[in-house]
Amino acid sequence: MKKISILGSTGSIGKQTLDVVREHKDKFEVIAISANSSVELLLEQIKEFKPKYVAVYNEDAAQKLKTMIPSDINIKVLSGMEGLKTISSLPEIDVLLTAIVGMIGLVPTLEAIKHKKDIALANKETLVCAGKLVMSEAKKNGVKILPVDSEHSAIFQSLNGENYKEIEKIILTASGGPFRGKKKEELLNVTKNEALKHPNWSMGRKISIDSSTLMNKGLEVIEAKWLFDVEVDQIDVVVHPQSIIHSMVQFNDSSVIAQLGCPDMRLPIQYALTYPERLENSFERLDLTKIATLTFEEPDLETFPCLKLAYDTLKMGGTYSAVLNSANEVLVEAFLEDKIGFYDIPKYIKETLDAHDSIENPTLEEILEVDRWTREYVKSLIQ
Amino acid sequence: MKKISILGSTGSIGKQTLDVVREHKDKFEVIAISANSSVELLLEQIKEFKPKYVAVYNEDAAQKLKTMIPSDINIKVLSGMEGLKTISSLPEIDVLLTAIVGMIGLVPTLEAIKHKKDIALANKETLVCAGKLVMSEAKKNGVKILPVDSEHSAIFQSLNGENYKEIEKIILTASGGPFRGKKKEELLNVTKNEALKHPNWSMGRKISIDSSTLMNKGLEVIEAKWLFDVEVDQIDVVVHPQSIIHSMVQFNDSSVIAQLGCPDMRLPIQYALTYPERLENSFERLDLTKIATLTFEEPDLETFPCLKLAYDTLKMGGTYSAVLNSANEVLVEAFLEDKIGFYDIPKYIKETLDAHDSIENPTLEEILEVDRWTREYVKSLIQ
Repeated sequence: MKKISILGSTGSIGKQTLDVVREHKDKFEVIAISANSSVELLLEQIKEFKPKYVAVYNEDAAQKLKTMIPSDINIKVLSGMEGLKTISSLPEIDVLLTAIVGMIGLVPTLEAIKHKKDIALANKETLVCAGKLVMSEAKKNGVKILPVDSEHSAIFQSLNGENYKEIEKIILTASGGPFRGKKKEELLNVTKNEALKHPNWSMGRKISIDSSTLMNKGLEVIEAKWLFDVEVDQIDVVVHPQSIIHSMVQFNDSSVIAQLGCPDMRLPIQYALTYPERLENSFERLDLTKIATLTFEEPDLETFPCLKLAYDTLKMGGTYSAVLNSANEVLVEAFLEDKIGFYDIPKYIKETLDAHDSIENPTLEEILEVDRWTREYVKSLIQ
Repeated sequence: MKKISILGSTGSIGKQTLDVVREHKDKFEVIAISANSSVELLLEQIKEFKPKYVAVYNEDAAQKLKTMIPSDINIKVLSGMEGLKTISSLPEIDVLLTAIVGMIGLVPTLEAIKHKKDIALANKETLVCAGKLVMSEAKKNGVKILPVDSEHSAIFQSLNGENYKEIEKIILTASGGPFRGKKKEELLNVTKNEALKHPNWSMGRKISIDSSTLMNKGLEVIEAKWLFDVEVDQIDVVVHPQSIIHSMVQFNDSSVIAQLGCPDMRLPIQYALTYPERLENSFERLDLTKIATLTFEEPDLETFPCLKLAYDTLKMGGTYSAVLNSANEVLVEAFLEDKIGFYDIPKYIKETLDAHDSIENPTLEEILEVDRWTREYVKSLIQ
């Protein structure tokens, strides 16, 4: 029985994690769940999965949830960052699944690592902002970082039984998002509703916008660098609109290993929870003769400058990737609130990167300070 | 330094094996080579690779070679089946690469296994005729059977680090051969020259014809059954004309792992010789954006009955697959000599299978006897 704590159980990945648990109740036990403020859904999840702890980040929502829980349910309700840290480091858990969105996942993830909990990582911002720190802490504590992103899970699966030193190149596939094939002139005035329409995956709003700007792929490039310990020029992005090949690894003998499947996030979630074993399930099987055609093209860095910016920050090193990520979080939010246009996202990121004083080997405190500075700086730009 | 003996060094796979050795002379040493009768090429290979032994199957050719070898070259010239057996079981070799074509590879391969030599297997007839026997001998002697066929190497690589018990399905890809998309009516009068034109791979004549009838894929299905210990209904064939995905494995959690690469036999040859390590080389790298499109379709069993016949023999068990293979060898030869038509190949195979008395768990002697019976029976049919 694997004992799991879930950061962000009411989001898209969190709900699908509970789908996986539901199919294998004999294999997994949910010890703790958490959310920002979605108390109604949390209550449903509490009734079904009977966790021992729930953490609600928003204090008012935490108070509200306390009043909603029936008296015959025995559960500890925690709140704030302290609540997230507590459920990330419970003595009884084996693994922390971090499905929370954004920079907020970093502190509880580090807390879990310090307590020697394996991490099933869906929160890509953790590695984007603090890859060096997180991976070195994981190594020090003998903790496995198991990727949940479909692309990184594909790479991780393709590396099964292989020697990481024989990696020549990591090839991340990208669907290309809803604006694939368009040129910049056509995209200047796109609305959030157009940007939210992802062709293959049903995802949260933040990641859907990131997918439309290709920033999502940029963040994945940075994540891959840290997860698989490769150099930036060893990571390629190939646009593959059908999202069937989830990513690939090219080895030093020219052989390429790939992982394929129907687009279904439950598979990488399950794999992160069962690794190194696989677990039989009822997910749809891939039928390539029905799909018939897989296509591949180069990403268009002119039309999608966010991807290039992400590569640039990796080359520049220091805290530039953290700035890229925090600036992007603020700007996507502003775009979703109709405060800025589509191309203001890369424009303001670039301005923020230019204004940033990078720190070479930042501590957690320094990373958090860079995050604060970035958010303020970006807000000053868009006001 | 890995010490290698090569059965069939003058054929397509044999020559490419020597290409691999040539690129890594610090890693491999060729101890013995062999051929049926191509003494000129053998002599060149002897001069370049300085093996200690050469075996020539044809006795006259062996005598001729002896007279050709310069007196300053110190080499033992062997002949006949005894010669092949001797170079397959030399105390100083680590691995036998069997690149010989046809049923003739069986006896020396078993000899090597008994002497605990690992087998790099390019001779698919060995497993087609005697899969059960060969695999059980290999297990008993703790010998690795390392596939050299690009498809089986792809499956083997896809299974790296995985638990074979978690295999749900093996998906063999097939180029479809030169007649893909054609119907039976269009193929009734095809000539050997049309059949020899393979779209992606440059191969020997026998395997090129097998590729045009899809018998090659049928033999690979049988080979896969024995190599990877799966049931016949766990093996699918998908036509993939670009020959980029060399084959795939679907696991019980729905995940599919595939191996991809440019069509180049040197990669699977090298992998069989370096496994579990990979070895850096100068082979062409895959660029999916250049290839742009990969397509997949169901195989057409009406137009290509040989593939269905191969599946049938696996289901029937016993010595039926051996009959299929030996009959096919005779019939391909006859087709190449313009003695029979394209569709006479499956027709006479079917008639021979119908006439055969199968043996459930055959010994080597019984398998050899089935081979003799089959060849005579087929010859009586076509005369």
